Amino acid sequence: MSHVTATRQVPVASQRESDPVRVAVIGLGRMGSDHVERIVNDVAGAAVVAACDPDEGSRQRHERRFGITTFTDPEAMLDGCPVDGVIIASPGHLHVAQVLSCLERDLPVLCEKPLAPSVADGRQIIEAEVARGRRLIQVGFMRRFDDHLAELVATVHADEIGVPLLVHCVHRNPSVRPTYVSENSLDDSLTHEIDQLRWLLNDEIVAVNVLVPTSTPKAPHLADPKLILLETASGVLADVEMYVNATYGYEVRCEVVGSEGTASTHIGEGPMVRRSGQVHQRVDANWGQRFGASYRRELAAWVAGVGSGRITGPSAWDGLVTSHVAAAAVESYRTGQRVPVDVLETPALYQ
Amino acid sequence: MSHVTATRQVPVASQRESDPVRVAVIGLGRMGSDHVERIVNDVAGAAVVAACDPDEGSRQRHERRFGITTFTDPEAMLDGCPVDGVIIASPGHLHVAQVLSCLERDLPVLCEKPLAPSVADGRQIIEAEVARGRRLIQVGFMRRFDDHLAELVATVHADEIGVPLLVHCVHRNPSVRPTYVSENSLDDSLTHEIDQLRWLLNDEIVAVNVLVPTSTPKAPHLADPKLILLETASGVLADVEMYVNATYGYEVRCEVVGSEGTASTHIGEGPMVRRSGQVHQRVDANWGQRFGASYRRELAAWVAGVGSGRITGPSAWDGLVTSHVAAAAVESYRTGQRVPVDVLETPALYQ
Amino acid sequence: MSHVTATRQVPVASQRESDPVRVAVIGLGRMGSDHVERIVNDVAGAAVVAACDPDEGSRQRHERRFGITTFTDPEAMLDGCPVDGVIIASPGHLHVAQVLSCLERDLPVLCEKPLAPSVADGRQIIEAEVARGRRLIQVGFMRRFDDHLAELVATVHADEIGVPLLVHCVHRNPSVRPTYVSENSLDDSLTHEIDQLRWLLNDEIVAVNVLVPTSTPKAPHLADPKLILLETASGVLADVEMYVNATYGYEVRCEVVGSEGTASTHIGEGPMVRRSGQVHQRVDANWGQRFGASYRRELAAWVAGVGSGRITGPSAWDGLVTSHVAAAAVESYRTGQRVPVDVLETPALYQ
Amino acid sequence: MSHVTATRQVPVASQRESDPVRVAVIGLGRMGSDHVERIVNDVAGAAVVAACDPDEGSRQRHERRFGITTFTDPEAMLDGCPVDGVIIASPGHLHVAQVLSCLERDLPVLCEKPLAPSVADGRQIIEAEVARGRRLIQVGFMRRFDDHLAELVATVHADEIGVPLLVHCVHRNPSVRPTYVSENSLDDSLTHEIDQLRWLLNDEIVAVNVLVPTSTPKAPHLADPKLILLETASGVLADVEMYVNATYGYEVRCEVVGSEGTASTHIGEGPMVRRSGQVHQRVDANWGQRFGASYRRELAAWVAGVGSGRITGPSAWDGLVTSHVAAAAVESYRTGQRVPVDVLETPALYQ
Repeated sequence: MSHVTATRQVPVASQRESDPVRVAVIGLGRMGSDHVERIVNDVAGAAVVAACDPDEGSRQRHERRFGITTFTDPEAMLDGCPVDGVIIASPGHLHVAQVLSCLERDLPVLCEKPLAPSVADGRQIIEAEVARGRRLIQVGFMRRFDDHLAELVATVHADEIGVPLLVHCVHRNPSVRPTYVSENSLDDSLTHEIDQLRWLLNDEIVAVNVLVPTSTPKAPHLADPKLILLETASGVLADVEMYVNATYGYEVRCEVVGSEGTASTHIGEGPMVRRSGQVHQRVDANWGQRFGASYRRELAAWVAGVGSGRITGPSAWDGLVTSHVAAAAVESYRTGQRVPVDVLETPALYQ
Repeated sequence: MSHVTATRQVPVASQRESDPVRVAVIGLGRMGSDHVERIVNDVAGAAVVAACDPDEGSRQRHERRFGITTFTDPEAMLDGCPVDGVIIASPGHLHVAQVLSCLERDLPVLCEKPLAPSVADGRQIIEAEVARGRRLIQVGFMRRFDDHLAELVATVHADEIGVPLLVHCVHRNPSVRPTYVSENSLDDSLTHEIDQLRWLLNDEIVAVNVLVPTSTPKAPHLADPKLILLETASGVLADVEMYVNATYGYEVRCEVVGSEGTASTHIGEGPMVRRSGQVHQRVDANWGQRFGASYRRELAAWVAGVGSGRITGPSAWDGLVTSHVAAAAVESYRTGQRVPVDVLETPALYQ
Repeated sequence: MSHVTATRQVPVASQRESDPVRVAVIGLGRMGSDHVERIVNDVAGAAVVAACDPDEGSRQRHERRFGITTFTDPEAMLDGCPVDGVIIASPGHLHVAQVLSCLERDLPVLCEKPLAPSVADGRQIIEAEVARGRRLIQVGFMRRFDDHLAELVATVHADEIGVPLLVHCVHRNPSVRPTYVSENSLDDSLTHEIDQLRWLLNDEIVAVNVLVPTSTPKAPHLADPKLILLETASGVLADVEMYVNATYGYEVRCEVVGSEGTASTHIGEGPMVRRSGQVHQRVDANWGQRFGASYRRELAAWVAGVGSGRITGPSAWDGLVTSHVAAAAVESYRTGQRVPVDVLETPALYQ
Repeated sequence: MSHVTATRQVPVASQRESDPVRVAVIGLGRMGSDHVERIVNDVAGAAVVAACDPDEGSRQRHERRFGITTFTDPEAMLDGCPVDGVIIASPGHLHVAQVLSCLERDLPVLCEKPLAPSVADGRQIIEAEVARGRRLIQVGFMRRFDDHLAELVATVHADEIGVPLLVHCVHRNPSVRPTYVSENSLDDSLTHEIDQLRWLLNDEIVAVNVLVPTSTPKAPHLADPKLILLETASGVLADVEMYVNATYGYEVRCEVVGSEGTASTHIGEGPMVRRSGQVHQRVDANWGQRFGASYRRELAAWVAGVGSGRITGPSAWDGLVTSHVAAAAVESYRTGQRVPVDVLETPALYQ
């Protein structure tokens, strides 16, 4: 595994202040408490000093286990506790108010995706950040910090396969929560591929078409799998298999087809075991196993950015554009039509 | 490599007459002369006794090298020379007349694809064969005799991955002849995937949609690559990347995505060489290298069928339906629209 | 799979007499009857016209199934039936007399390994062949006709990895017959690796050392596995894992370590199946599955050699030297010592 | 990549004191300064507060870059600066005195390998640690913290392949420093495999035999490669290819052969690139690239152990036994003989 690659991705402060970065966390659900645990155990130069969540049990567990001061109300926390940066891992519909509240205090934010429930809401955040004149927000597209994907992207950017023409993506989950609806594979799961394609191709998506074959008998209430076609401004065509009840494991794959060759993510993890007529390798069980190291690097990069005053990860604009394309995907799914996507003009702050 | 698999595919006569099957070949271009050489050197129980071609040099080479009696005219050959079966490897627009001529003589035929230049022409052949009341024609879809694909199909048919939902195919050539036009990747190259999908899924294709991204700078006069979407009657969706100027080599891949797992063709051929910072394997250089063994098995199966009086390989009906779907693909390419394909009623002879 | 490679290996007559090569088979046990079936079904230009075996049932089956005239006595067969070449697949202790009998009649022979039960016996054969002044014998080292190994050897011979320094070999069987004794992994199984190393390295073996770890509980009566160290005249060191109760399948692997890189046989056969948390490929079940195509090419090459009057496959000398080294391996196993092997002077006929 | 696996390996304090672990580093050469940088940038809950090195430039760089107080003399540093743990990365012959000095102060130590230049020296350390009645020393065998190897070991320990019988190891470096002598591949490089085998097999090595084939022309002054045979008390036989001028890259591989199957490290890193007739993946360039993440986890585990007062990584005893076996390997290399290794009685502290 290449640390070199990760280093290219994540600018790290070459000098570190002796005082750790003080982090507050809004939301102690699964994602928020995972972030707390990673910062405490795996990220250098940071300390979680405060957290808030409406659930008392969750607050008490974090107080007891990590010695964190907890609150029920984010505003009370931000007023009552001096911090250097805020991680927002609350439900998506609360993001806008919480992000704006941090921006008002000039506090750097790591906001889980989606940045906002609608493009209009996202616009408010963009305007507020632009008004402050510098980047304060990083959005939680952790794939940009994945060694495997970063090396694939670097291979393409280094022109090893010529001009990209087609991209084939696969995104499979073993299963999903009972409350997952068909649109979630577009407005939630697919956002990772949308951001990944923009990162990979340095290009904007101009049309989306969602195709729905026969659904798996494992989830007859869902349209699953789907095949999503994404077209870019320069004419690249990407197809994404989104399959959230694949049963056998979690897999994210990508092959970029260029004018001089192709590059694809590698295959197989763990020991090669020969037994009973087969040679096998395990497949990752879930996204936590697949992307655990990426979350750590995402947090480390953000902490370094907070420390140095320079946030460089995926931006609020990346979050907004992704939501914009995802909304078109949902429309395509509902109408059964290919939906053109207008390219939003990028504010100067994000160019 | 599994011979077991091949044996499943190719019913072989358990007893063999002492006299070899006498074969005539119509057309001594590349494909025809390859077939002659394979029968002479690699197929048991057969002898090429006659061949015809308008080109004198080609005729003389085959007379000299293999002691074959040659003719300029197929009719003269069939009238003048007792044979047990005929291989037709002439240009496609000549197939109808030549196949009909063989059927009139009750001679088994191995006809290279396409069976006929149009569906209407193909109908004549079907009617003639149906009128004779038994199968005499095998069409040259040699992939059905490929060990790798046969084992993939057997895996799916054995229900190892549950119900098929999606199929991803890749078909890449390093380059194509100067006379190749954009439609040829649909009416020629794609026919292999059409037949392969029908074989794999036991299902008929009901719609086709040809998508065209930016073309490769290697062949600016062509729409290359293409992404072709094929929908089946039972709701399976297949995407086929057709890319005939991929430069790096020849590759045919297939992944079938099912309700319990997926199955895909393997990756990499030849020794694994570690050198200069890489581990690499070769990619096949061309279809002859990839499918050489499949052609041999195709011929062996046909020869066995001629010997036993029972032709079982891909049928004239498979050839007709494939042309029918390919014609819809060409229409989709020309109109830019998804084209529904009506399912033809299968005559009893082919059920 | 590369046919090109096979073609390099197997010189094929560019012209073929119209009459097929008439083959007699001595011994209709498993190997002999497999050879009969392959020639009848899979080898062009040959016919099995006679066979002999002491077992009446076996004779009758072959008469009935393939129309072959059978005999109980090899001499009677050779006297009574005109043939062009003889395949010897009888028990090893009968080989010397049978080979000599064929040589007296100037008949080309394909003799299964071992050529002779002892080096002294083998010397008689060599002297007889040398006395006739030309090669008439091919020994059944079918690995030389395996596409995968041939391509590995070609890679090394093409100097892609520099000077060979080490070779790692693995030879695993799922299980062995009840009568198999510990020495058989040396005087039988290992002969394939001995011949393979001489072919690969163009070098002679000068010492052998057999190491015996704890045996598998699957076969407590055997010394299994073994690790055999073979040293060559030019100083290459080869280690061979010989493990005949590996349970999981049949595998033959080889990695050649050179001064500029390494080359090794590829890994994994058949479709890649993702299911239940794993991605797996099958392993071959037995040597018939692994080397079926190699046997076919071996026979085709020998038939072509009989037809053209020029036998070029592994020679009687290769058979003799292999037995010579295998005898040293048995001595090493029995004494627990490294055993030097004197290099035999190669007669001019085999240089 | 499995974080689960790492977690199994590295017991992490579930609660963390608010004050970071204060670390002193002895030796600011490549290894020492890499450790400093990893602690500062990548390890949670630790701070490098002091370092010592005879080289002024190196001291100044670390003061300037990381704000670390530096010293020329380890004793002065330990006397003058309150610390919680010490990393020793000085030249090997200085280890004994420095480790003993730390033990006298009851300070936990992470000591780079070799623990001591001789077994006799190592005994002094063992006696001092035993006298203190608890483990204070972790030795720098970072492979125990490698995800890939840990998962391989876990597979074997979980009895997935039955009883281990043979182990095949490969250890290749692209090249070595000019001062590297033939013995270094045994007393330095091989120590990693010795420790790895003891970890993997829970077994002691009882004999070693070093075999030397022709050396690579790339390093005619060295005996390179070597094949080292290691026998364990329970009869497992391990062969280790040690090749330090392999030119093409850095590779560490291991296949364990058991009574029910085999398990081996996976093959290939980074994207699969198809180009120019090949599909290739990169090979790691050096041990830093291969084991960067392992060093981080090693440090994190040691820091956690210092924090919790419980050191659990590879012990001083592991370091001593490894040196003991390595000394036998050097003797075998020099004498050309197999050298028996007596099994040292493990003190109670390390059982």
